[in-house]
Amino acid sequence: MDTVAHRGSIMRAEIIAVGTELTSGQKLDTNSAWLSRRLLELGVMPCWHTTLPDDLEIIVTALDLSRQRADLVVITGGLGPTLDDLTREALARLAGVELVLHEPSLRHIEDIFARRGRPMPERNRLQAMLPRGAEALPNPLGTAPGIWMTVPRTPCACPREEHPLNLGLAKPRTTLIALPGVPSELRTMWQTIVAPRLQQQLHSPLVFRERVLHCFGLGESAIEAKLGDLTKRGRNPEVGITASDATISLRLVAQAPTDAEAQALLDADEAFIRQQLGEVVFGSGDDELQHAVARLLERTQLTLATAESVTGGLVASRLTQVPGISRFFRGGIVAYQTTSKASVLGIPAHLLEQYGAVSAPVAEAMAQRVRQLFQADLAISTTGVAGPDPDERGQPVGLVYVGLAWTNGVRCCEVRWFGERLEIQSRAAKTALNELRLHLLRMLPATR
Amino acid sequence: MDTVAHRGSIMRAEIIAVGTELTSGQKLDTNSAWLSRRLLELGVMPCWHTTLPDDLEIIVTALDLSRQRADLVVITGGLGPTLDDLTREALARLAGVELVLHEPSLRHIEDIFARRGRPMPERNRLQAMLPRGAEALPNPLGTAPGIWMTVPRTPCACPREEHPLNLGLAKPRTTLIALPGVPSELRTMWQTIVAPRLQQQLHSPLVFRERVLHCFGLGESAIEAKLGDLTKRGRNPEVGITASDATISLRLVAQAPTDAEAQALLDADEAFIRQQLGEVVFGSGDDELQHAVARLLERTQLTLATAESVTGGLVASRLTQVPGISRFFRGGIVAYQTTSKASVLGIPAHLLEQYGAVSAPVAEAMAQRVRQLFQADLAISTTGVAGPDPDERGQPVGLVYVGLAWTNGVRCCEVRWFGERLEIQSRAAKTALNELRLHLLRMLPATR
Repeated sequence: MDTVAHRGSIMRAEIIAVGTELTSGQKLDTNSAWLSRRLLELGVMPCWHTTLPDDLEIIVTALDLSRQRADLVVITGGLGPTLDDLTREALARLAGVELVLHEPSLRHIEDIFARRGRPMPERNRLQAMLPRGAEALPNPLGTAPGIWMTVPRTPCACPREEHPLNLGLAKPRTTLIALPGVPSELRTMWQTIVAPRLQQQLHSPLVFRERVLHCFGLGESAIEAKLGDLTKRGRNPEVGITASDATISLRLVAQAPTDAEAQALLDADEAFIRQQLGEVVFGSGDDELQHAVARLLERTQLTLATAESVTGGLVASRLTQVPGISRFFRGGIVAYQTTSKASVLGIPAHLLEQYGAVSAPVAEAMAQRVRQLFQADLAISTTGVAGPDPDERGQPVGLVYVGLAWTNGVRCCEVRWFGERLEIQSRAAKTALNELRLHLLRMLPATR
Repeated sequence: MDTVAHRGSIMRAEIIAVGTELTSGQKLDTNSAWLSRRLLELGVMPCWHTTLPDDLEIIVTALDLSRQRADLVVITGGLGPTLDDLTREALARLAGVELVLHEPSLRHIEDIFARRGRPMPERNRLQAMLPRGAEALPNPLGTAPGIWMTVPRTPCACPREEHPLNLGLAKPRTTLIALPGVPSELRTMWQTIVAPRLQQQLHSPLVFRERVLHCFGLGESAIEAKLGDLTKRGRNPEVGITASDATISLRLVAQAPTDAEAQALLDADEAFIRQQLGEVVFGSGDDELQHAVARLLERTQLTLATAESVTGGLVASRLTQVPGISRFFRGGIVAYQTTSKASVLGIPAHLLEQYGAVSAPVAEAMAQRVRQLFQADLAISTTGVAGPDPDERGQPVGLVYVGLAWTNGVRCCEVRWFGERLEIQSRAAKTALNELRLHLLRMLPATR
């Protein structure tokens, strides 16, 4: 992002998740990522995620820091009724006020217990205590109300005045919003109460719009090299590259005064990226390779079968994640033991003996045989060495052959992946799905 | 955990994850939770998780704070070759030194590209640049070396001397360790290099030992009810329950002066849990159901085949995640379309017509037929409705039949799962693996 925009007119947010189950690694924090996406939609830049244990001093100190560096602080968790729920008390200490009972919240909590036909434990009364001056945010799904308050942004007393974060923080108060950690309660309260209210108050001069494009078949640096200055920092849209399990994703974030202007910026960059990378780009948003394959099967109306060895069913399993794929995906065979390749798939014994199970001729025969067995238009196969040890013929870990058979032919590609067993299996499955995708692309009518 | 132990003699750690894809919510940070568990094992208390965007000023400022409040700082991400990988530069700025080329790291990177038969892009040279005075941590799986360095813990210049975090921080230097964000690289480097070295240096007065037991077949509250006071807070070991995709995990954390004492505490609790829950407990640590099944196949020396419809290859794929499974797992058939169930698997047409593809008789026939085809001792099958829509006979989303065939018989179980398509597929696969596990348990010699 443009560094200048971080300060001044663009609001910067900190998201704080409270709970020892998070800092101890027992539980994964998914709320902060969700809130980040919601904040970006509102034109607020999430700059810090902070996760804290159920320790009052640590929480108060972190809140004190956050009010200085962020314009908006969203806190999740620590609003329950137990002794280790400390967010209420920490906010009161931060503001230098006491906790006072909020009668409507208490009645709401009593109502909930009454509806469940259970007496309210005395402890739950705690949930209706708010820092004096704070506002309660009603929680339609649970007992804990949220808290909305502002505190003065005390300038950092630190003598190092050149501290970069002290520049441009001219607003006199920081807004703090505390919400329950239960994801369903948090999300409902955010969408119904917090987001509409923030939208009203923000008058953000800029909107942020995000677009993600996914690539397969080229490495991260090769892709970056093809994109020239696109990934240079400070550009608008800013383009970031991330690699996850051999899929390379380009994330574009545009900022502009209006949605239409932001979308136009994204459209221009997407067009350039697609022109530079061509068929390497397979999808956008939540797409994975199997979704791209499913769309192409739909367009070509071709049926498919799979024969898997090294991927052990992963190609079929990923395909069947796509709803409606049963119209095109007939099924497949996992021929895991070499004897099964002969007995069930009918691979000629002489091929297995001459070339070994991990070889191009066997990969091609697997695809051809499974295509016949399932009477499919297309078939894809995998054979390789997932490790941890080389195969009995000494073929190295990570060597993978992908076979592809169609009405008029068969071919094979060889790749070498690195990593652990599960990574090799996953990347081999992606290689197979990608081969299929590239083949289907060539079968589309020329009009595309 | 005891709050007093947070300060003074117990080391406190901050974990910093770097990447705009994390602060923007595009990607979930799983590294910090994993590192927290590893730090606890070493007796180090993780007190802060901080996630930062790819913004040099923000990273430097956060590092500056972390070195003041934490004894140990572990940083993940930002070590890649691209322009937005800024961890190296931020560490150099923090230490007030320049980046210098580390020749052995450069040779390692060149080697990796040479082995892959590709030229090294000039950019990857950046990955061999380290802050002067820092030590490179070799990365056996990737190009980016890790960084180990110490910096003076500058006392906070803040005049508020009562600041709680300034107490007990007597050590003059803070250790910072930067590791790649790729989970496999991070984990391998942690286990082989970082953890052994930290262990040597720490001399912690208390050790924390963790044990995780995994259960399948009972819900979270049913399990909690069977465990009585075990999950009460403040107990030692502390026992936490988490549910993930229908697997319920019990995480025990014991603290004691020695490893032996901690292990004895864990042994006692584990014995109690196993007595209360019996066969519901299927494994520990990183075990998943397929690992329990693989161990039992090894003990019984039985061979296995799979016939999958609703799970689409997921059962086979999970089984083949286990190294060495090819000695027992012959293979399987994904009979996804109903016609494939008849043509490839040979399910009698009258069964399919009379009962429909999603039925107990078809599940049983699938298991029997695949067992014959693969000449296996045992076979497991799945058929069901993954959704989003009911099947053409109106069978509801989430209905799943699991068939099991062995030398002398066949049986079927019916379950109903709730959730989205991928959740139903995953839980159906787990149900199948669990049925197999329970069957194999009964086939063990009575001596167990």
